[in-house]
Amino acid sequence: MSDAASAATPPTLSRVRQWDRDDPLAGFKSRFALPEAVLYLDGNSLGAQPIAAREAVAKVMDQWRDELIQAWNQGWFDAPERLGDLLAPLIGARRGEVLVSDNITLNLYKVLGEVTAVAKPGRAVLSEGGNFPTDGYIAQGFCRFAGLAHRWWPEGEALEEHLEGVGVVVLSHVNYRTGAVRDMADVTRRVHAAGAEVVWDLAHSAGALPVALNDCGVRYAVGCTYKYLNGGPGAPGFVYVAGERHDSEVWQPLSGWHGHAVPFAFDDDYRPADDIRRFRTGTHSAVIYAALEASLTLWQTVDMAQVRAKSLALSGLFQATIAGHLNAYAIADITPAAACRGSQVALLDAEHGYAIVQALIARGVIGDYRDPGLMRFGFTPLYLSHEDVWRAGQALCEVLDSGEYLDPRFAVRGNVT
Amino acid sequence: MSDAASAATPPTLSRVRQWDRDDPLAGFKSRFALPEAVLYLDGNSLGAQPIAAREAVAKVMDQWRDELIQAWNQGWFDAPERLGDLLAPLIGARRGEVLVSDNITLNLYKVLGEVTAVAKPGRAVLSEGGNFPTDGYIAQGFCRFAGLAHRWWPEGEALEEHLEGVGVVVLSHVNYRTGAVRDMADVTRRVHAAGAEVVWDLAHSAGALPVALNDCGVRYAVGCTYKYLNGGPGAPGFVYVAGERHDSEVWQPLSGWHGHAVPFAFDDDYRPADDIRRFRTGTHSAVIYAALEASLTLWQTVDMAQVRAKSLALSGLFQATIAGHLNAYAIADITPAAACRGSQVALLDAEHGYAIVQALIARGVIGDYRDPGLMRFGFTPLYLSHEDVWRAGQALCEVLDSGEYLDPRFAVRGNVT
Repeated sequence: MSDAASAATPPTLSRVRQWDRDDPLAGFKSRFALPEAVLYLDGNSLGAQPIAAREAVAKVMDQWRDELIQAWNQGWFDAPERLGDLLAPLIGARRGEVLVSDNITLNLYKVLGEVTAVAKPGRAVLSEGGNFPTDGYIAQGFCRFAGLAHRWWPEGEALEEHLEGVGVVVLSHVNYRTGAVRDMADVTRRVHAAGAEVVWDLAHSAGALPVALNDCGVRYAVGCTYKYLNGGPGAPGFVYVAGERHDSEVWQPLSGWHGHAVPFAFDDDYRPADDIRRFRTGTHSAVIYAALEASLTLWQTVDMAQVRAKSLALSGLFQATIAGHLNAYAIADITPAAACRGSQVALLDAEHGYAIVQALIARGVIGDYRDPGLMRFGFTPLYLSHEDVWRAGQALCEVLDSGEYLDPRFAVRGNVT
Repeated sequence: MSDAASAATPPTLSRVRQWDRDDPLAGFKSRFALPEAVLYLDGNSLGAQPIAAREAVAKVMDQWRDELIQAWNQGWFDAPERLGDLLAPLIGARRGEVLVSDNITLNLYKVLGEVTAVAKPGRAVLSEGGNFPTDGYIAQGFCRFAGLAHRWWPEGEALEEHLEGVGVVVLSHVNYRTGAVRDMADVTRRVHAAGAEVVWDLAHSAGALPVALNDCGVRYAVGCTYKYLNGGPGAPGFVYVAGERHDSEVWQPLSGWHGHAVPFAFDDDYRPADDIRRFRTGTHSAVIYAALEASLTLWQTVDMAQVRAKSLALSGLFQATIAGHLNAYAIADITPAAACRGSQVALLDAEHGYAIVQALIARGVIGDYRDPGLMRFGFTPLYLSHEDVWRAGQALCEVLDSGEYLDPRFAVRGNVT
């Protein structure tokens, strides 16, 4: 497979099919419910549906109907910790270090609250330019409210030049636009050396490539489960904090009853759990945890090194299939080189990008679009074959050659999630 | 029906059945999926499952499978506002004043952030003693983090004596233990007269009795939807703020991208929506919103005055059925008089309360228990008949007379959610 990544000329379909026959992950495709006649290259926004998730949701609806309140004692209540332990090995964490809870935005707020309480007080929070907006927004809200300074680290500048007086910096492991991967170990070491903390956002890396939080010396991370981890639309986020014990004098600010040391004691005063459960807030949805648990259970059988190898093969294959057309149509491929790339290909066409994505969708090839001009195509090795990706590349070439993207209906803007 | 509430002697089954024949809400029972051989008196903790919710969840799972990312533009993204507008008439609010989002704990934090930014700065937050713990916990976390004083208003003392220097007080409309209802209009007026704001928690009143937020001059409220509103386990909470426009200089602290004035502009800097959408945080679960929307759609056809009348009839009927036994077994009925009662009956037996509830559950009569000694029985007029309640009362009498609650297996404590 590996030669696909570097091939400049489009491979033949027969060769692509040979790669599928040799693919050790090929068997996973049958574990997903995929629509007919669709090539789905947007698993980086919303992962496809595991068949087991469907069954799990039906089962939890039966539980709600039949067991009613008693189902909370039959696996529902402990789901945030149990699912955290299922997620831990996928991101290089230990049992007890991960909790599935709320969403990335809220988890980032909790972690910022705990970090700034633990670390040197009064220092600024630093956000990276070009990161997914919600990370910056919640850091701004946090700082405004906590009376701390919020600063931006502009894209392209050296991180060290912006760490003076900074208590914590929030960084994405994989950039949501370009797919560029940061060197987690190196950056973490540099931030710590400057006397600051770093919170990693794993939205575009968890389930997309190997993540080694413990080995990289990472102390704090957050992420989501509805992209590469296939947890379903709006599936809960997660929080990681290194070590199993937390200082009981430190509170994360969103101090709800499920994060209390003894939730069912119904004490008057809050006292945080001394473990990862302190990041729970209030009652979580049993239904969406069931869908995610089904997906995480499937993930336990996945070899992440195989995922990474196939991911690079697929993104390289896509590039090889379309390379000639990109030149001809003056579309820029801003995808980083394989060694520092996530699981997506990023193309830029400020004038026609939106319409090209819409024209592809009309053909059943689903990527997504972000202003200004960015076309994103995500590669999910568990349910995309090499032939799928080859066909998607062909479709892009045909959309360009036919000029069908110039149809006025593809210029009409709607929400793009 | 009304004489049931005051009757001291147990009514006959034939009379109870007559009330069912005359019940204008009797038709709603068939809209719920209820297990056989269970009398469910815990809808105050987790409401029963509307049949339409089951269908809605199956449909949204189909959408996820078939439409994938595109489903976000087909009704998923706007669900928090749309469901808020469905909920508004049930609590006496206008369109645009209610948002369905996150959970009560988080919504309370957001509202406290907005209130303390709008109202006189630096003033204390007051929590009521005896309220559900999470309301006090999150107020404590909020204050600790915001550098504000947090105080307790002890149960039984006069509210006015505790409002000096207070910026905002958090009160439950219906007490989760006793079921006592506060006079919302009177208390709101008194708090405002003292120069403070009040945030009402509607967890035990929304869907249980008529709530008239606008008419009572209420400016802020939060609540949940998984109790009387039947939204499903861990269904999202809601937030109400009077008026449709919000000051753009004021931020609620949990400033995620879905609460941005233009979420899909992907601006660098946060700018809150100037309407109720500012209380959104990050991506919500399409699956659980679908279940709740099905239930709220059913609720549009419900006459809340009929719900209130039947609720009082049912709680009165339960009391009448068990009154003689309570005396005989020295169990205290601490339920308030009908005029200031929610939709539950509260019994106290510090020694045997837990075991009695377990013995009832073993007979298929599901109530719940809260330390110390509190047995709670909730009455949900849409899916409980008078005969159901009469039989539940009979079961309690039999559990007492037989002494079966003394079986050692009923003394073993587990989680009680």
